[in-house]
This record gives sequence, structure tokens and C-alpha cells, in this order.
Amino acid sequence: MADSAPLHIRMHADDNVAIVANDGGLPAGTTFPSGLKLIEKVPQAHKVALVDIAEGAPVIRYGVVIGRALKALPAGSWVHERLLAMPEARSLEGLPISTVRPAPQEPLSGYTFEGYRNPDGSVGTRNILAITQTVQCVAGVTDFAVQRIKSELLPKYPNVDDVVALAHTYGCGVAIDAPDAIVPIRTLRNISLNPNFGGEVMVVSLGCEKLQPERLLPPGSIPLVDERNVADVGENATSQLDVVCLQDEAHVGFMSMIDSVMRQAEEHLERLNSRRRETVPASELVVGVQCGGSDAFSGVTANPAVGFCTDLLVRAGATVMFSEVTEVRDGIDQLTARAATPEVAQAMIREMAWYDAYLQRGQVDRSANTTPGNKKGGLSNIVEKAMGSIIKSGSVPISGVVPPGEKARAKGLLYAATPASDFICGTLQVAAGMNLHVFTTGRGTPYGLAEVPVIKVATRSDLARRWHDLMDINAGRIADGEASIEDVGWEMFRLMLDVASGRKKTWAEQWKLHNSLVLFNPAPVT
Amino acid sequence: MADSAPLHIRMHADDNVAIVANDGGLPAGTTFPSGLKLIEKVPQAHKVALVDIAEGAPVIRYGVVIGRALKALPAGSWVHERLLAMPEARSLEGLPISTVRPAPQEPLSGYTFEGYRNPDGSVGTRNILAITQTVQCVAGVTDFAVQRIKSELLPKYPNVDDVVALAHTYGCGVAIDAPDAIVPIRTLRNISLNPNFGGEVMVVSLGCEKLQPERLLPPGSIPLVDERNVADVGENATSQLDVVCLQDEAHVGFMSMIDSVMRQAEEHLERLNSRRRETVPASELVVGVQCGGSDAFSGVTANPAVGFCTDLLVRAGATVMFSEVTEVRDGIDQLTARAATPEVAQAMIREMAWYDAYLQRGQVDRSANTTPGNKKGGLSNIVEKAMGSIIKSGSVPISGVVPPGEKARAKGLLYAATPASDFICGTLQVAAGMNLHVFTTGRGTPYGLAEVPVIKVATRSDLARRWHDLMDINAGRIADGEASIEDVGWEMFRLMLDVASGRKKTWAEQWKLHNSLVLFNPAPVT
Ligand SMILES: [Ca+2]
Ligand SMILES: [Ca+2]
Ligand SMILES: [Ca+2]
Ligand SMILES: [Ca+2]
Ligand SMILES: [Ca+2]
Repeated sequence: MADSAPLHIRMHADDNVAIVANDGGLPAGTTFPSGLKLIEKVPQAHKVALVDIAEGAPVIRYGVVIGRALKALPAGSWVHERLLAMPEARSLEGLPISTVRPAPQEPLSGYTFEGYRNPDGSVGTRNILAITQTVQCVAGVTDFAVQRIKSELLPKYPNVDDVVALAHTYGCGVAIDAPDAIVPIRTLRNISLNPNFGGEVMVVSLGCEKLQPERLLPPGSIPLVDERNVADVGENATSQLDVVCLQDEAHVGFMSMIDSVMRQAEEHLERLNSRRRETVPASELVVGVQCGGSDAFSGVTANPAVGFCTDLLVRAGATVMFSEVTEVRDGIDQLTARAATPEVAQAMIREMAWYDAYLQRGQVDRSANTTPGNKKGGLSNIVEKAMGSIIKSGSVPISGVVPPGEKARAKGLLYAATPASDFICGTLQVAAGMNLHVFTTGRGTPYGLAEVPVIKVATRSDLARRWHDLMDINAGRIADGEASIEDVGWEMFRLMLDVASGRKKTWAEQWKLHNSLVLFNPAPVT
Repeated sequence: MADSAPLHIRMHADDNVAIVANDGGLPAGTTFPSGLKLIEKVPQAHKVALVDIAEGAPVIRYGVVIGRALKALPAGSWVHERLLAMPEARSLEGLPISTVRPAPQEPLSGYTFEGYRNPDGSVGTRNILAITQTVQCVAGVTDFAVQRIKSELLPKYPNVDDVVALAHTYGCGVAIDAPDAIVPIRTLRNISLNPNFGGEVMVVSLGCEKLQPERLLPPGSIPLVDERNVADVGENATSQLDVVCLQDEAHVGFMSMIDSVMRQAEEHLERLNSRRRETVPASELVVGVQCGGSDAFSGVTANPAVGFCTDLLVRAGATVMFSEVTEVRDGIDQLTARAATPEVAQAMIREMAWYDAYLQRGQVDRSANTTPGNKKGGLSNIVEKAMGSIIKSGSVPISGVVPPGEKARAKGLLYAATPASDFICGTLQVAAGMNLHVFTTGRGTPYGLAEVPVIKVATRSDLARRWHDLMDINAGRIADGEASIEDVGWEMFRLMLDVASGRKKTWAEQWKLHNSLVLFNPAPVT
């Protein structure tokens, strides 16, 4: 890239700045194909003025004002954070509500994938036996059982992809009646119901834990599968929760516990094994998008490509969730303006206000998210950073909000309110019903989940080259001038259909790289 | 036990109540060997008045006032929670400070175990290669590497017991500059330095995480082992932290990361393998005690036996830590009174006040610890419950306080301030330098740690019988009248020396039952 032609990247037609894409930046005197000439050196990923910007005039990137010029900035000058007056901190009062009405986009039809239809209407992209646990106490026993299930039972059920122990650190030793305890409890409940688990819920419980199985999965919360999990019959038929309780008096000796778990697992494996993929429309995708290990190119290559793909998915009738409160907080006015209805905008404001208060209790504010590397990398302020993150959400209206731990119940673009922490965000998106995960990274992370396939997108080519067997897509080709945002967005869309269909495995799946589920527990431990 | 002779158990010479030990309780008219006759039915584990207690007179158990009689309670009557006026809530003001001076106990000499001496003077009970991780991002890669280390390298180093990945959910996506972030950070640091890891610290880092290796383990925090980890030479020799950074540009392809981890691991395995157990005094034991899945017998059989053993250990010069803030909070006056110095008492009060405030921020109080099962099981109130938990600490003076995540630096009985959560408590005791863990349980839990052997003590014989290959000691024999508290305490002491020496494995070790390390992070996530 160092030897390639001078290249700047503009994010939006209204922008009066663009960023320099070339490795090592570009020297004064460089002339771009557009005729723009640099009047000073501009480092890589930093901004150049595309036109003369008067003192006090807005500096526009991503189509939004990221600041005002502190002095006149002639075309071709370096626009860095010391030349910009930061926008006011975004209050949650007086926000624009549903003021932006994006032009309706043409529906995208004819795209399908091969998925597993579930009794509740959702569609899985994998066929996994998940073992729910009420409490960390049972994690060791469950792991032991899962090892034996994998070696002794799974080979008999070739249509089942995997057996996954849903371990977590919640369930006891926690303030379970605290107001905020609802978050981790509903998260665990909804993880059990993720479409990739086929409605085959089985629970391992200790017996004396605070989070009793009936509290975790109350009657009516799991689907009725067949006669073997019926608690009542006829018109009142409801499902019976399948629980192995280690403290059950029938258990004598450790192996009797393992036998119980294996016996119950086999019943579910039999049913899962009989399932077959069928052709379903792309509208059955529930995609969670997030970023981690971000760099200055995240908002320039990978995230815009995700945003383009988000629009494709929504046009195809699918569900896309974007998240990460602390990374979008400063773009709240953009989000409320794009809300499909005032109710959606109010729900977003509620979630942001809740998070502000949560951070304040811990004596931090939203700036706890930013890093010193951001400015060095060309991001002038948190508004600009937020725009680079929000861009994953594309341009369609925001049609719903998913509070942390709840299930997504609408189609279209949803704001799933989660922390930015890769693992907590991913876990909450699993709970929301995600059946495919897209993760962009600039610095590189080997992130993966056992529950849902993760497509990883590199923001730059040198990462994609070095991590050739960890990154699934190279969005760095955009910065190299070798592909457009649209090209990479379409590549991503097609790869999603392949991965969702099981025709392709992600690299994280190939290597079985699995990060922990990490619960968001805003309540105290005891 | 149902057919055995009527038995009541008194905990302290000053007590005017005792509890009924017999299965199913005892009917009115039952006469004990002492001549005491029940004037009404008393359920198992519930209290009987040993003498006539006048209205308004103190009801004494564990030698302390657990309440005042709301009406006259004749000898032989059932003393339950509705007959007791609860003691005042314990304020942290005006507490007795070092008022109790336990009679000095005779030193216990001549007891030894076979342990691994470390460069820093501590002694390990196991010889484990632990792989420290700065952030959850690297957990999948580290797990992959550990599997290969176990299958390809460990067989070449037969003196090494195990290879353990110290996975956790901290390191990024957290408010790392929040005031309370010090707790999880120092916890991770001190876990790396647990005596069972022989000072062989190796770190897997991602590269861009907030918790950088130098922040986790600053210069000077790890011991100088030999010339291979020297950062400087001669008089200024300091150790060089051994870090595998996945984002290092030298890594091309996933397997290059695995190779790096394995290459570094082998260097540490070589040194660990050359270590040999040597005879050391029992004073080198650092024992963490806690309880979980408690029942009414916890405070009657297992915990008192632990308390007796605590006294033995302290007489032998060892370190014993008791913990679990919310379970001892209501016995704070007992603890401050037993503090060896006013400074120790003040440190305890500080920790309790900090925890009160932490719970209040989350809109809960210390009663969040109690369960409905407690009263049904015969525990009249939180004071009585706290006494049954504190009794693990024996009768010696409390000679120090360990704040959460810090290392224990004194001998004798220490109060390690931790939540009661089994996993968080255990994790913080690992960080404090525990080389042996004792865990009492009534309802039963298969709890185990990969880092430190866990001796599990059953509070009753029926659990010990059913869970014969999970429970290491049956303290239920005390309730059965078959053994005294002293008998079981001595059995525990001897088993500790055997387990510490590697002559015996605990059941959790036999089955490799390993619970997660769970960090105490009172600060927000981002
Ligand atoms: Ca069943
Ligand atoms: Ca992010
Ligand atoms: Ca993230
Ligand atoms: Ca306890
Ligand atoms: Ca505990």
C-alpha cells in the first residue's frame, strides 16, 4: 500500500473532510486524482480538508458535524483534534425524534439459506445441544458429562453439530432480589432459547441455589416439543422442564450424576438428530453486529461495509442488531432522529439514561470507553468515534429497541442495548436470538463463540494477511482502493448465507475458538 | 440416625439452648440422657431450652446472645424464631475493640508436610504451570494451546502436576480507571503469584487490551527465577515478564501463536519439572476456609470441626483465612472483640463499611444473603446464622485483615474480606496465597478448583454416604454421636497434611472437577 497511488476516503456525500488511506501517510505536495493537493503532511487515517473550511464552519464527517473549525482550514490541510471545537456533550433532553425519514429502500428478494426451522418459528443456523445450568456450582460436573457425551454419544448423532455447556458465574452468591437482577436472569433464560438449540432445553441444577430452575425458566417459557416433555395433556398441554438436579436423593455417587445428564442428553440428541436443514428466506437471519480491537480504519472500511450489508439484510426482511451503548452514546441524536417511531426513540433514550446512571454509580462516565490510541489513530473526539461505530447500522430506520437480556421480537434494524465489552455484547446478542454474528476488528482478536458462528472482518489488509486463518473477510481492500464498500458489503452478505447454511465454516469454528459467555450483572454479588 | 438415642448438641458452655440432632426431630416426652425432657415436639436441627429461660432473658447459643425470650420458655420447650426478639442490627459504631483476650494456646510442633519451596519463601502444595491471561479475548487461543501442551509436552515433565489456563472475564470492556477497578486487577496479579505456580509466571496478551501486561504485573512484581527472565543484570537484576502477545507482528497464522505459547510454556515446564518436594513445617500451610450449600448442621458439625482445626493450624504456626462478608457481618462485634490489635479491628470495620455501601448502591442490604430454607432449618435469625459461619474461625485472636484481591502477608488467623459467593470467595483466597482450601457443605456441592486442592467436608452423614466419592470428610458423625468435634478436627488436620504433601488427592482432584475463577469486580463494565 505504501507504494500505491495517493488515496483519500470520504464517508458521506456531505463530508468536507476525508481520511488519508496510504500506509505512512502522505507528504505535503501530494496530489490526489481529484486534483486536491496536500499543503502539509497528513498521517495515515487522519483527516484532510477537501474544500476551504472557514473559521467557525462545521467540519463534517459521516454526514454529521464532528466539530467546528477553530481557524480557517484551506483545502488540503491536516484537520486534527486541536483544530476542532468539540460539539457539546449530548444531553438526553431535547433530542430530535424521528426527524429523519430515510428514503424507502427497494425490497431484496430471492435470497435464501438452508436453516433449521424451530417449533417457535425461529430458524437455527447450527444444530447444537446446549446444556443450561442454573449456577456455577454444577459447571465441573457438566463439563465432565459433556466430554463423555462428545466422545460416546455425539458420534451416533451425525446431524448434531456440537454439545455446548452454557457455563456462567451467576445463580447463587448474588443479590437475586435486587432491582437489576432481572438482567442476568432473563439473559440466561433467553440464551437457552437461542434458535441454534432447537428448543431442546435441558437444565443441570444443583438444588439449593438461589436461581431455581422454575425461576430461570418458568412454566410456559419453553416450547412444547413432543409427548416426552409434556406436563399436562390435551388442550392445556404445556411443556415440562427437563432438569437434572445433582442434589436429588436418587443420586448416589458421582457417576450417577453423570449418568443422569447423559441419559437426558441422549433424548434431546435423538430429536435434534432427526432435524434437517430446509430452504428458508434470508429474512430468517437474526444478525448481531459489533466491533472490538478497533482502529482508525474500523469506521472507514469494515464498519461501513457492515452498514451496507445491514441495509441489504433489512431490505431482505431480516433482523439486524447493533449495540455497544458507550460507543454510540455520543451519536444518540443520530439514533433518535432515525427512530422509526417516537416510541422507539424514547426507548433508546431510556436505555442510554439507565446506562449513564449505572456508570455514575461506579464513578465513571462514558469516556471510560475511549483509549489514547484513538486520537493517535486519527479520531478527533468521541463523536467521531461513535459515528464510526454507529455506521455498522447502515442507513435504514431503527425499528425497535432490545433491552439487555431480552429477546428481539421485531424484524428490521434493532438497537440491542448492551455494553461494548465484546463478550458481554455477544452474550446479550445470543440471548436476543442472534443466529449469526459479525465482528469487525482492526487490531485483531481471535474472538469466537460456541453458540453462534462468528464472521470476523479485518479493517486492513496487513491484519488480514498476517491473520489469514482467523479473519473471514478483508475489508482492508477498501482502503487499498481494490474494492468498494458495496463490493465488500455484498461479499459479506453472500458469506453470511453460506455460513448460515453450514456450507462454510468460519475460522473460529474451524479452530473451535470459544470465548466465555459473560453475563451483564449490574446488581451486587453477596 | 432415626432409631438412635435422643441427642442434643450444645455449642458452648454458656449456651442455654441446644439443637436436636435426630433425623425427623423428637416427640414430646422424649428424655435425653442428661435427664432433660421435651415438653413439646422439636424438629431436627431446631433449638430446645436446656434450662428455664425467663421472659426477657437472653437466649444464648455459640456463647452469644442470639435474642431475648418473648415469653417464659421452660426447660424442654421448642425455641424458635417467633419466640425470640431479634438483637438490634449491628451498627459499625461503638463496637468492642480487642476486648476479648483468648487464653494463649500451646504451640503445636512436630507436624510437617512435603511441599515445594518457592523463591519468594512461600510453599506450594502442587506443582502447576499456570498461564496468566490479560483479557478474555485470548481465552480460546490459550485453551487450544493448553490442550496441546497437555498432550504433547506434559508427558515429558512428570513432576509437573498440571497446566492451567487462568481464564477470566476481565481485561477490556471495563471501567479500568474506576476507583474500584483495583480489586479485580490486583486479584489477577496475585493469582499469578499463588504458591502452587512456583513463581513461573507466563502471560498471554492480546495487545490492544486495556489491562496491559505491565499494568497487570508491573516491574518488580514477579520473582527473579534465573538468567532467562532477567531484564537487567548484576546488582540491579530484575525479572523480565514473559509475555506472548497475539498481535505481535511476528505472528503469521494461527499456528504461529500456538507455537509461541508452547515454546514459552516448555521453558517454564523444564524448571517446574526440576523441583522436588521437601519436608517443611505445618506453619507453611495457608488455608482458606469457607462454606457453601449450607444447612442447619453446618454451624453444628462441619464448621465447628473446621474451627477446632483452625486452632490447631494456628497453634502450628500456619495461616488460616476465613471470609464471606455477608455471612459474618452480623457477628462483627464478636470479630472486633477478638481482634489482636485495635488496628486489626479498625481494618475489619473498614471492610464491612465498604461492603455495606457497595450493597446499598445496588439497593440491597446484607439480608440478601439469607434464604427461606434457613429458618425452616432451625436458624432463627441472621445473628445465629453468622455465628454458625464465624465458628470456622475457631477461638484464636484475629491477627490480620486481607482486603479483597490482596495477598496475605501475616501468619495466624486472618479475616480475608470477600463476598460469600463460593467462587468469588475461593478466587480471592487463591489470590491471597492459599495453598489448601477447606469447604464445608450441607446440601452438597461438587465444588473444585484447578489451582488449589479443595477438601470438602459434609455436615451430615446421609450426604456423606450418598456423595461418597465427592465428600472428603464426614463431619456428620458429630451429629450422629459417633465422633466429637475434636475427633473430626484432628482428622481434618491430618488429611490436610496428607493432601498438602500430595500423598492423597481430594475427590475434586480425582475427577478433575474445576470451577471457574470468578473475579470480584465492583466497578462498572463499559
Ligand atoms: Ca424428558
Ligand atoms: Ca466496539
Ligand atoms: Ca465490542
Ligand atoms: Ca457460606
Ligand atoms: Ca461461600
